[in-house]
Amino acid sequence: MGLADATAVERTGESSWRGAIEGGWDIAGNANGGYLLTIATRALVEAAGRPDPATVTAHFLAPGQPGPVTLEATVARSGRRFTTATGLLRDERRPLLAVLGSFTELAAAEGPERVDGRPPDLPPPEDCVAVEATDSFPPPFMGRVDLRLHPEDAGFRTGAPSGEPLVRGWFRLRDDEPVDTVALLLAADAFPPTIFNARLPVAWTPTLELTVHVRARPAPGWLRCTFRTRYVSEGFLEEDGEVWDPTGRLVAQSRQLALVPRQG
Amino acid sequence: MGLADATAVERTGESSWRGAIEGGWDIAGNANGGYLLTIATRALVEAAGRPDPATVTAHFLAPGQPGPVTLEATVARSGRRFTTATGLLRDERRPLLAVLGSFTELAAAEGPERVDGRPPDLPPPEDCVAVEATDSFPPPFMGRVDLRLHPEDAGFRTGAPSGEPLVRGWFRLRDDEPVDTVALLLAADAFPPTIFNARLPVAWTPTLELTVHVRARPAPGWLRCTFRTRYVSEGFLEEDGEVWDPTGRLVAQSRQLALVPRQG
Repeated sequence: MGLADATAVERTGESSWRGAIEGGWDIAGNANGGYLLTIATRALVEAAGRPDPATVTAHFLAPGQPGPVTLEATVARSGRRFTTATGLLRDERRPLLAVLGSFTELAAAEGPERVDGRPPDLPPPEDCVAVEATDSFPPPFMGRVDLRLHPEDAGFRTGAPSGEPLVRGWFRLRDDEPVDTVALLLAADAFPPTIFNARLPVAWTPTLELTVHVRARPAPGWLRCTFRTRYVSEGFLEEDGEVWDPTGRLVAQSRQLALVPRQG
Repeated sequence: MGLADATAVERTGESSWRGAIEGGWDIAGNANGGYLLTIATRALVEAAGRPDPATVTAHFLAPGQPGPVTLEATVARSGRRFTTATGLLRDERRPLLAVLGSFTELAAAEGPERVDGRPPDLPPPEDCVAVEATDSFPPPFMGRVDLRLHPEDAGFRTGAPSGEPLVRGWFRLRDDEPVDTVALLLAADAFPPTIFNARLPVAWTPTLELTVHVRARPAPGWLRCTFRTRYVSEGFLEEDGEVWDPTGRLVAQSRQLALVPRQG
């Protein structure tokens, strides 16, 4: 089952949708956060009546397991160019995700450009480290997306983290499924955590909040991604992401705030 | 009137508050966005029953002018450590701000630290460029906060922008009013836009969304701030901020997404 089917939602009322968390999109039994956000955003773009998220923020309230979910949406304002809406995604027991986003129709923009950054330098996908879901690790979620890690950033998998909280790599969906602007939200949360490369005594960094800015619809093909953490402090860390399309265009920028529990 | 008074709110019901946009906190007639967010967050910390925002996102729906405002809050989930709530701030005519935040009680954290960054190097405040509200420019808002710009980043004021979309400076409230974690949201949106230094044909960059992560309660005194833009593209720009307290601790990190209209 591709991402489109695994995140499909059905409108059940003026402001309510239903969908399902499908099996296999999990990390250690809990659905990937970007996957949950993608489900919620499928409903919100319908609520907003605009196809593209421009900026979406999710706060993660509880882990999601396979089963039915519902989303209630409220449109805060519909303006000339943007519609802003909130949504609450729930399973049968509890709320999972609170979302706030502004939606629009992204189109080629004419205007000033100034870009102080570039896509990561990556060896070709076939020379990178494929993250395959073979058994318990990597987690099942990794079988749903096609990730190829920069060899320099893949050492954590064999007990040799780089020492830099940096993860670079290629992203695409399986079977060449197109990546639309909603699927970019998944790309922004699909890679192994940067902290895995940091040589810190941190095993697990639950995400409190994820914000993704979507700048443009990606051209078809492999996306180049960079995730970096600069500040592990006060029990928190941020992880900043950039997603670049094959034409070399920055299509999404993300930041998440995660908790840094002490180990043991 | 200090910030605490200018952002005071009164509970009027189970989930409703009222307050006021006070005169003088505006830029060209419209209330500063961080000021609106501070008002809204004063209500949300009460709704959440937790004093500190950990991460707050605001979507700006309409400009605010002086007068009464109300806020309706909804608690999405109250957990062991965080409470997540949404709020809609309105004036008498329309919604101004949609907010989603998670609130907690920030305390000294023990745990791993890794900090790849530092406060900006700034000349002492008295050797920086004070932004005073003298007449039409700088705007009235600048009289409400005490900003001192790094001389290298202040050239835009005299028609000599640095060419780098970077603004560094000191921040404090007037009359030594303490800066609590809610007031940090104001600090994150108080400086002149980075784009003023970019030598691009852009006059006005309305903010669509602002997210602030608060890591710690700031120690008293001047805060050091850095704001930087790396990507002006596709009709958008992001502005990333860091706020450091006098002990050299990163107390807040911010990112906003703004629109880049063509000039003329």
